[in-house]
Formats: sequence, C-alpha cells, structure tokens
Amino acid sequence: MQEIPKIVLKNRILIHYPLCPLSRAVRMVLTEKNIDFDVSIETPWKIRPELLVLNPAGTLPILLEDNGSNIICDIQPIVEYIEDLQLGQPLFPTSPIAKAEVRRICNWFNIKFYHDVSLPLTRERIWKRISREGTPDSVSLRAGLENVKHHLFYVAHLVSNRNWLAGNVFSLADIVAAAHLSVVDFLDNIPWTHHVHARDFEPVRDWYARVKSRKSFRALLGDSITGFIPPEHYANPDF
Amino acid sequence: MQEIPKIVLKNRILIHYPLCPLSRAVRMVLTEKNIDFDVSIETPWKIRPELLVLNPAGTLPILLEDNGSNIICDIQPIVEYIEDLQLGQPLFPTSPIAKAEVRRICNWFNIKFYHDVSLPLTRERIWKRISREGTPDSVSLRAGLENVKHHLFYVAHLVSNRNWLAGNVFSLADIVAAAHLSVVDFLDNIPWTHHVHARDFEPVRDWYARVKSRKSFRALLGDSITGFIPPEHYANPDF
Repeated sequence: MQEIPKIVLKNRILIHYPLCPLSRAVRMVLTEKNIDFDVSIETPWKIRPELLVLNPAGTLPILLEDNGSNIICDIQPIVEYIEDLQLGQPLFPTSPIAKAEVRRICNWFNIKFYHDVSLPLTRERIWKRISREGTPDSVSLRAGLENVKHHLFYVAHLVSNRNWLAGNVFSLADIVAAAHLSVVDFLDNIPWTHHVHARDFEPVRDWYARVKSRKSFRALLGDSITGFIPPEHYANPDF
Repeated sequence: MQEIPKIVLKNRILIHYPLCPLSRAVRMVLTEKNIDFDVSIETPWKIRPELLVLNPAGTLPILLEDNGSNIICDIQPIVEYIEDLQLGQPLFPTSPIAKAEVRRICNWFNIKFYHDVSLPLTRERIWKRISREGTPDSVSLRAGLENVKHHLFYVAHLVSNRNWLAGNVFSLADIVAAAHLSVVDFLDNIPWTHHVHARDFEPVRDWYARVKSRKSFRALLGDSITGFIPPEHYANPDF
C-alpha cells in the first residue's frame, strides 16, 4: 500500500473538487447506484505531490478503495469501473451500439466541452480567484462564453430528437452532460433567458430540468464555495 | 440512413488517416481480433462537411457498419464497442480493477500524450507539409520533442514494473501506447540511441520491440506517405 498523507482512508473515498465537472459526474453516478462513499477535497489548480503518486496525470477525480489498495483514476475509467461492479441500476443501455453512443457523448463532454467551456470558465473565474494566482485571462474567458452557445446548439439538436441525451433511456451521458452544465450554470454563464438564442435552448432547459429533479443531482447543487453565490435559478428544479 | 458521398459503404469500414495514432490503434484492435474491415482515408487537417455529419466532433477515426446505419466515433468508444461485440481474443483483463488500469493508460495516451506529443508533432511535421497550409510552429515542435522525453520516463517506469503496460497480460493499453509511439518513431523523434537518456528508455524499447513483432502491428508499419521516409529502424522488429 502506498502511503497517502493527510487523507484518512475509508473503504471507498472519492478525491474531488466540488466545482470540478468530472468529479461531479462521479459523485452523481455513485449516488444513482446507492454506493456509499466518503469524499476528500483537493484543489485542481495545485495538485499535491502525494496526489501525483496516486494519479501521475495530476487530474481529478481519483477513487480509492480498500484502504487505498485500489486506485482508479480519471472520469471515464472510474465510471466504467463502477458500472463493471454491477451494483445498483445500470447506467449504460445493453446493446453495444447504444453503449457506444453513450460513450461518444461522454467523451464529447469530458474532452471537447471540458476544454472549450468548463475548464476555461472554472479556471479563469474560480481557480484564479481562490488561489490568488494570476488574473482572469479575458481572451480565454470570452472564448469559453462564446463556445457555450455553439455547444448548446448541439445539445439542443440531440435532445430534440431523443428522450434523453444518448437515446431513449436515462444514461451516463445525461449525468456527464448535466455535471458540466451545472458548473457553467453555477457561474451564471448559460444564456437560458434574455438571450437572442434562449428559445433555441429551450429543449436543453427541459432536459436539464429533468436531470435536476433527480435526487443524485440535488445533492451536488447544495455545494457552496466561500465567496461565490450561484444565481437564484441554479438549485431550483423549476427554473 | 444518412447520405455519405464519396465513401463506398461496405459491411464495416474504418475512416482513418494512416499516420493518425488513434486510427492506428483501432486498425490494430480489428486485426488482433481477426475482424474484416475496409478502410477509407480522410485528412485530419481538413475534415469534409460530409464527415461532420458522421462525427460532429470532426475527429478520426470513425467506424461505419451495416451500410452506415451504425456510426461509432472516437477511439475509446470504438475500441470498447469492438470489445463488447465479444469477437476474437479479449483485449481487456477480466477483473474490473485491472480493466480500470487499462482504461487509465489508454486515456493517458489518447488525451495527454496525444496533446503533448503525437498531435503537435504530426500536425507541425506532416499535416502542414502535405496541406501546404502554414509553416511548422517551432515553439509547438520544440515542446512536443521535449515532452517525448518526459513521457518516455513514465512509460519506462510502467514497463519496468510489469510484463506489459497495464499489467501482466497484453491488453488494449499496449496497442494504444504502441500506436502513439509508432507515429513519433516514424518521424524519428524517439531518442532510442545517441541520447543522454537512451539507457533509461531501454525498458520501453524492449516492450516496444515485443509489440512490433505482432502481426497486427507489422501491417501498420508498412504504411507509406509520399514525401516522407521513415528511419531505417522504424519497421524493423529488432531495432
């Protein structure tokens, strides 16, 4: 067993950051499956060397099990692992082709949406403010805000043709997508109303309201960070 | 069925680029499993609108089946899909925790190594030259070359402690990693010899030679691109 200072190990512990969309998705998956877990908060902008021992990529989230003898790193490996445990309700459809569509959308959010939107916005608006290191980069911020709109059009296209994001059943794709949107919404950077395209995004809003009403999601929306006040509609399922 | 101009559809067709590491990994997986497929070459630097219909992310590879009614996009969803079909030899170990380690290493190569090394090097040295669009960016090139070394240390650490990259059995992690290294090696950008750290990278070289000797890998090493001559050791299993 590797020595992991400052983290009290229990049977299953998620190392996460409350406003990290990748961590949020894992928390939601664990709750959807009624799997008990403890959490330990790490700051993604300053990964401690002890954490690099666990995940050399230096990214969150990290799931530890059995007093740290099981170390599972990164969003997709973690959620696939939890699914492989076959505990609770499955979050993948059964057919290989339908599973592939779920994974495609998860990747789209965890790689493309993350790099285009969730990472720049949280980095510029949250990480830099809390760490007091650097000032927000206006080019990066503007690009992030512009990308939100482009990407919402694609999400609107998907949910206009399907009951849920990757097909007709609720899946991991809905969890991952909602986790990313929730972080952007915490920052009040989703143009739900008072925007020229607000109407185009109505299908997204309807779908997001359905995810918001799930018990597993409501737990996330209760997170608070000192110095940040989310908009009023943020935690309200009927927004 | 969506209309896909200029691509003759057969039962299973992989849309790929010969020197795209992500595409190479899929070709190797299909060959390892003895799955028949045809290929169609696309240039990753200029994705045609017809391709965006298939994959809105605009990335390669794309796997089409059943005359295009099945569209599977992106490396990890494609390889997981092929595994889910349960054809041929499995490329994942059986235990969930061992599978998670395979997926962690795949992600490390397909996201981190790709962005730090394989993408900048192929973009600056191959894409720009063939497309005649832009000149190589020296900052990006230098960063890619510097990152190769850092990342080879990590690979050396992994293969020094294990028989194969993700554990004691050959897995998808070895295929994905070798696919990325093969592209960098085609460009003669791996410091195997005549380098201060060449000795540190010997475990990587031994592991890579073992992957090179597989039939599925030798097929990839026969690819040629007009105007580019790989180094002599490139296609030689005993290099």
